[in-house]
Amino acid sequence: MAGDSTDYSDLHALFVNTTLTRSPQTSHTQRLVDISAEIMARQGVRVDQFRSIDHDIATGVYPDMREHGWAADDWPELFGRVLRADVLVIAGPIWLGDNSSETKKIIERLYAHSSELNDKGQSQFYGRVGGCLITGNEDGIKHCASNVLYSLQHVGYSIPPQADAGWIGEAGPGPSYGDELEDGTRTGFDNQFTNRNTTFMTWNLLHLARALKDLGGFPSHGNQRPEWDAGARFDFRNPEYRS
Amino acid sequence: MAGDSTDYSDLHALFVNTTLTRSPQTSHTQRLVDISAEIMARQGVRVDQFRSIDHDIATGVYPDMREHGWAADDWPELFGRVLRADVLVIAGPIWLGDNSSETKKIIERLYAHSSELNDKGQSQFYGRVGGCLITGNEDGIKHCASNVLYSLQHVGYSIPPQADAGWIGEAGPGPSYGDELEDGTRTGFDNQFTNRNTTFMTWNLLHLARALKDLGGFPSHGNQRPEWDAGARFDFRNPEYRS
Amino acid sequence: MAGDSTDYSDLHALFVNTTLTRSPQTSHTQRLVDISAEIMARQGVRVDQFRSIDHDIATGVYPDMREHGWAADDWPELFGRVLRADVLVIAGPIWLGDNSSETKKIIERLYAHSSELNDKGQSQFYGRVGGCLITGNEDGIKHCASNVLYSLQHVGYSIPPQADAGWIGEAGPGPSYGDELEDGTRTGFDNQFTNRNTTFMTWNLLHLARALKDLGGFPSHGNQRPEWDAGARFDFRNPEYRS
Amino acid sequence: MAGDSTDYSDLHALFVNTTLTRSPQTSHTQRLVDISAEIMARQGVRVDQFRSIDHDIATGVYPDMREHGWAADDWPELFGRVLRADVLVIAGPIWLGDNSSETKKIIERLYAHSSELNDKGQSQFYGRVGGCLITGNEDGIKHCASNVLYSLQHVGYSIPPQADAGWIGEAGPGPSYGDELEDGTRTGFDNQFTNRNTTFMTWNLLHLARALKDLGGFPSHGNQRPEWDAGARFDFRNPEYRS
Repeated sequence: MAGDSTDYSDLHALFVNTTLTRSPQTSHTQRLVDISAEIMARQGVRVDQFRSIDHDIATGVYPDMREHGWAADDWPELFGRVLRADVLVIAGPIWLGDNSSETKKIIERLYAHSSELNDKGQSQFYGRVGGCLITGNEDGIKHCASNVLYSLQHVGYSIPPQADAGWIGEAGPGPSYGDELEDGTRTGFDNQFTNRNTTFMTWNLLHLARALKDLGGFPSHGNQRPEWDAGARFDFRNPEYRS
Repeated sequence: MAGDSTDYSDLHALFVNTTLTRSPQTSHTQRLVDISAEIMARQGVRVDQFRSIDHDIATGVYPDMREHGWAADDWPELFGRVLRADVLVIAGPIWLGDNSSETKKIIERLYAHSSELNDKGQSQFYGRVGGCLITGNEDGIKHCASNVLYSLQHVGYSIPPQADAGWIGEAGPGPSYGDELEDGTRTGFDNQFTNRNTTFMTWNLLHLARALKDLGGFPSHGNQRPEWDAGARFDFRNPEYRS
Repeated sequence: MAGDSTDYSDLHALFVNTTLTRSPQTSHTQRLVDISAEIMARQGVRVDQFRSIDHDIATGVYPDMREHGWAADDWPELFGRVLRADVLVIAGPIWLGDNSSETKKIIERLYAHSSELNDKGQSQFYGRVGGCLITGNEDGIKHCASNVLYSLQHVGYSIPPQADAGWIGEAGPGPSYGDELEDGTRTGFDNQFTNRNTTFMTWNLLHLARALKDLGGFPSHGNQRPEWDAGARFDFRNPEYRS
Repeated sequence: MAGDSTDYSDLHALFVNTTLTRSPQTSHTQRLVDISAEIMARQGVRVDQFRSIDHDIATGVYPDMREHGWAADDWPELFGRVLRADVLVIAGPIWLGDNSSETKKIIERLYAHSSELNDKGQSQFYGRVGGCLITGNEDGIKHCASNVLYSLQHVGYSIPPQADAGWIGEAGPGPSYGDELEDGTRTGFDNQFTNRNTTFMTWNLLHLARALKDLGGFPSHGNQRPEWDAGARFDFRNPEYRS
């Protein structure tokens, strides 16, 4: 296997960790973030990250909740970091089989920006790529990732193949990802499925981000809202008028 | 607005309609398929389609169920059409808020092929793009689309932005998409949200399929199973060994 | 702990196994069914069961698909067994994180009967209780059970506490429930979480079925469709007319 | 139709509104709460309610987050009101097709108490009943309700038939529930499906709460954790030892 000689050093990536646990306490999810972020950093990608719960992010569906009665809102500043990133990975825990309230809060805040357009008249998230990392102690990676990836593509992100990865243990209570076991090993670290999927996800995000950046963003015919609103129909024909 | 001068005539698209209604009876979902397929055909894309329920597709998770006790199975032949397509759109109805059993059957059969690799050692679905169309009379587009798109990306398809569209009516029983109303109009045909999203989805599928085809498929470093199995790690570092 | 002296011998239970595997091949899900069915049988409950895929059940959303163009349909006869049961447990596998196409087919067929009423004018499923058993090799019990239990309550079943149970292994491919391991033990059989939840689910189904049977079915004020359609409003006040 | 002469005046109900909108701003979801709460109040039920976002509820999965580094947490006091209620209805909005972050936060906090037991050794939520109200402008009642009802039964609530109701409009942006239209009417108030389901849900919650209260709570054989942990098996037989 030859190495990958592609230059990724102009790419920015952001990992948002939506654990319910504040720093400096341990986030099991962070351990998966570290793996993926390290692979990216080794390619020269500029990697940024934050834990949402460490910040005072208001709840709501507007870009700046301070304009809607909230005394504080760290989101507008954090959102600048979202916009700098070509790659966005939401990494979160599973609670009762579903995404955490922090994951949903971040998705709500992203959704609040979905009507903001780029220069081409597309959602400003077009041309960026999204992925997902999920950990829990027993059940729900696919359920949670499905919701995260759906939400990201809905607002405009592109999703490469196999864009999610995670770790869960056998049904029932048990150690979480990375917890030290009696024999000194760490839970899940030898799970080749988790390791492989995390690696493949990471590379697939880079490949698609590279491709879209080289194209100058997501191509722009047939997906521009102002043109649609102005009457352009891009070969759409109303079925009412079919013969 | 200038037209799109890109040449799409080397692309193949396949729509699989997973309605529960056999031909020649009306499939409401088909009306959305027609809109999207027509846009593609106008760009020169070769468009193929079938209703799954018109065929004798066996139930199971193997590529050919005739090797597992089933007397007949149309899937292996239909799967040839799946493999010819650069763009796959699964179009289905909503029943009790969820995907139909036909939608699930098709996803199961696609999943059965997910370990088959292309020349690069990737899942053979890499380099293809997927989308989703959903109709129902009241509730569930996002729930259903989320599952379809998740499944497609899981087996290797890439998902462009806003890759789903659909129509549902207000909560409660009511007319289905395209049903004639008393005033002679057709239910949902004037829904600009449905029309716009169907159009945007269609173009986004074409753009991403074009981009990936021009790249010679999905780029191949860091996502090849045989190389992973042979020990390549693509800059993955086991967190156990971090200092 | 004293034993339970309640008499359950007038109760009927039905387990529908929605595995994709035909008899006599092994269904891993069946092993969970056996546990629950045995507990019921020991209380004198008359336990019935079938694998849906062993029968020629048509696809569709009508009570008898032979009236809608299908040459055969075993469902009408099987549905008689559904109606005899005070307790219905749907037991199925996970594929790609979701319920199987067989599970969805059975739900579609149950849904087709949801407008049929009992003597009180309620959905005929009122007064019955529902539960769910799920097995898979890695992920999805809660996602699948959530859909099954939601569907059952939607058509009229009551759901007792902790009405689902299941087994999955650690993330990634691996042995299925009950598969023999190298040391001669069986996968998951010593999982106390699975064993406890299966036991609790079973008893909770019996308790609620007993209670509802003793009440003569689900109480009938405020939930009768013919009365609503005839204008009864059961203290509902249209908010339009609030002062 | 005769009235219902059952006495419900010893029952308590709690509606938790998980809107993202703080008081006194309009919550569309509140309008559905009002309908259901009024029906209950007319039967003499003592009805309590709060909007979660009006309170300083910490994020996390412990009963009192002040013991885990949070300066404030209104949940412990609010949870007293949860425990007083025989009937719990979670009423929330849909955002991007899913439950709000407030809905998830409340579910996380309920989940934190799921290992607390009543005098019988059952989850303390046993003997209580749960329901769900959902509003949105276009899509997702069933998806959201499915998650809420699943979560409630998982921690110990019983779910009566048809325990969810809601309102959504046709696909796409549009007025929300109760918004005034140009002709002076209110969006959705004449939707007989929404009105009927809200009414049926309300009565079914009362019926099942009445039945369980008359039984002295949920019957207690086969579902007591301390007895299971002490070795009781309630007729469970390990399949390993089947002949």
